[in-house]
Amino acid sequence: MVTQKTAALILIGNEILSGRTQDKNLNYIAKNLNEMGIQLHESRVVRDIEELIVSAVNELQEKYDYVFTTGGIGPTHDDITSASVAKALGKKLIREPEAVKKLEAHYEEGQLNEARLKMAEMPEGSILIENPITSAPGYKAENIFVLAGVPKICQAMFEECKPFLDSGYKVESYTISTNLREGDIALKLGEVQEKHPNIDIGSYPYFKEGGFGVSLVLRTPERSEIKKAAEDVRNLINELGGIIEKEE
Amino acid sequence: MVTQKTAALILIGNEILSGRTQDKNLNYIAKNLNEMGIQLHESRVVRDIEELIVSAVNELQEKYDYVFTTGGIGPTHDDITSASVAKALGKKLIREPEAVKKLEAHYEEGQLNEARLKMAEMPEGSILIENPITSAPGYKAENIFVLAGVPKICQAMFEECKPFLDSGYKVESYTISTNLREGDIALKLGEVQEKHPNIDIGSYPYFKEGGFGVSLVLRTPERSEIKKAAEDVRNLINELGGIIEKEE
Repeated sequence: MVTQKTAALILIGNEILSGRTQDKNLNYIAKNLNEMGIQLHESRVVRDIEELIVSAVNELQEKYDYVFTTGGIGPTHDDITSASVAKALGKKLIREPEAVKKLEAHYEEGQLNEARLKMAEMPEGSILIENPITSAPGYKAENIFVLAGVPKICQAMFEECKPFLDSGYKVESYTISTNLREGDIALKLGEVQEKHPNIDIGSYPYFKEGGFGVSLVLRTPERSEIKKAAEDVRNLINELGGIIEKEE
Repeated sequence: MVTQKTAALILIGNEILSGRTQDKNLNYIAKNLNEMGIQLHESRVVRDIEELIVSAVNELQEKYDYVFTTGGIGPTHDDITSASVAKALGKKLIREPEAVKKLEAHYEEGQLNEARLKMAEMPEGSILIENPITSAPGYKAENIFVLAGVPKICQAMFEECKPFLDSGYKVESYTISTNLREGDIALKLGEVQEKHPNIDIGSYPYFKEGGFGVSLVLRTPERSEIKKAAEDVRNLINELGGIIEKEE
């Protein structure tokens, strides 16, 4: 039996919590994990403070199969992710020789200063995660994947993580959108949910021109059950005089 | 002395963790709290599972002055935030009479069914937070503010929370962007940071046409110190032959 793997994501950075930066990494990683059959169970945004990062890493590492972090692995004084992860794992922070080689290959003579060499520091025993954009690698330390915060680099690094991740069964998802309002459909939708306990039915209202709509999202690993539940949802919408605006 | 208030935000919803929905509430709330001098210290995204919501509420309520939640207060079976918050606080979940009146005023005769009445349920003793868009209110229960997940409604409700929030001192922020690369400026920037321990200097690289740039963000409650530190950053950029591309 293929079990489903679980993951957590720690977004590290004051800039997200001050509102300066709109995070995009959570959504990207969530979608991609979901497609691999790995369920993102939890995400946290923490400030650039060592003890906070250490405690989030320690807590989530025990609970989930994989932990991802984004942010805080650059060359400046506020980049403290690697030191914090090393501390959380009780490992030495070393200047990793393979990472240094990558930086040497990337930078022109004289450019690889002490600050940039800091980007080669990671917990002893880490496995490098390639960075095809700016060369400074991420890494895997135990079950923790340490990625960059800049979305383009984070996404490229995530692709490089895939070979290290065990796919689980994929959760199938099917969405039916209707012009009915959530409150009109809620009670009977609850009955459909009760009839199909293996399906997770989510209800997401949205604004549209001329009023509201609601997307009903059916999620389950059992494709055959989705069909039956979707039929029940369709019948319910018809029964209540609604229009199905989209199925996907 | 005006102290700075602290806050945490719990985003409740499977749809964020599956990647279906790109969250926008964190950024909005973060920015607005920041302007009020309330520092968002932490944010968590949790699934629609009662025990997870209960434990996040309990943990964060103790640590911070204010806790905000978004999502899970609609009429459907997957809306379990209010029941979970009541449980976390050890309070009875009641159908709040004032909230019922608001719903009665909003809906046409016959539309206010049991599902919609669920939106008037909240922990006993809660104070209503107005919802100028769809009338179903949020509420304040102890130091917890329970808001809707739909961004438009969440934002409108957040405005209604402001009278209940004690403003702290505002953190001043000043950004200097340069064409220098982070690694070229990192070591000396660290020295500027050491010289101004009361200022939090963040370094955020970005992509732009033709290469990279970096935004250096100075944050502190002491406006006079920002001026001095900004001057040091400007001198540093000049010394390294960089161009200041933007100050704001």
